[in-house]
Amino acid sequence: MKNLLNKLDKAFENRIRLALMSALMVNENLDFTSLKELLGLTDGNLASHLKNLENKGYITFDKIFQDRKPLTNYRATQKGKTAFTEHLNALEQLLKSQQR
Amino acid sequence: MKNLLNKLDKAFENRIRLALMSALMVNENLDFTSLKELLGLTDGNLASHLKNLENKGYITFDKIFQDRKPLTNYRATQKGKTAFTEHLNALEQLLKSQQR
Repeated sequence: MKNLLNKLDKAFENRIRLALMSALMVNENLDFTSLKELLGLTDGNLASHLKNLENKGYITFDKIFQDRKPLTNYRATQKGKTAFTEHLNALEQLLKSQQR
Repeated sequence: MKNLLNKLDKAFENRIRLALMSALMVNENLDFTSLKELLGLTDGNLASHLKNLENKGYITFDKIFQDRKPLTNYRATQKGKTAFTEHLNALEQLLKSQQR
C-alpha cells in the first residue's frame, strides 16, 4: 500500500487542482473565465492553483485576442496528462487494494 | 462541477488520510503498528493524521492489552464511513463529469 501511496501525485491532492486538471484533460483548452465559472472560484484562488500546476509543467497557456479582447487559454501539457493518468490509476488501485 | 467540488471532503484530500480511511473501511480495526507498516509512515506522521481524523469524529480507538502488551486499536466510526463513501462518490462523479 505504501508503494501506491508514493505514486499519488501531491499536485493533485488538492481538490481544486484535481478538478482543474480533470477539466483540462477533456477540454483541449479553457480560458480563465470559463475555468473560474466552472469551478466557482475567485480570481486569486484560481490564479494560485493554475500557477502551481504551471510550475510543475502540467499546464501551459496562450494569450490570444478574441473580438479584440485579451484571453488566456489554458491547456494540459503531455507531461501533465501523463501525470494525471498515473495519479488516477494509483488512486484506483489504492482504493481497490482495500476491498475484500 | 463546483457543487461536486464542495462535496469533496477536505479531510480526505491528503493522500495519507485517504489511505488510512480506506484501510479502516474494510478492516474492522487496525492497531497503530499495523497502520504504520501498511502505509510506511513514521510514528509522528501517523499519529498526526490519526489525530486529525479523530478530531473530525471519523475514527475512534480502543486501548487493549494483547499478551500483556498495550495496543491501540483504531476503527472507523459510522460518521467516518458515511463521509468517506460520500467523498468517493463525489470524486467519481467529478472525474466522470469531465469525460466526453
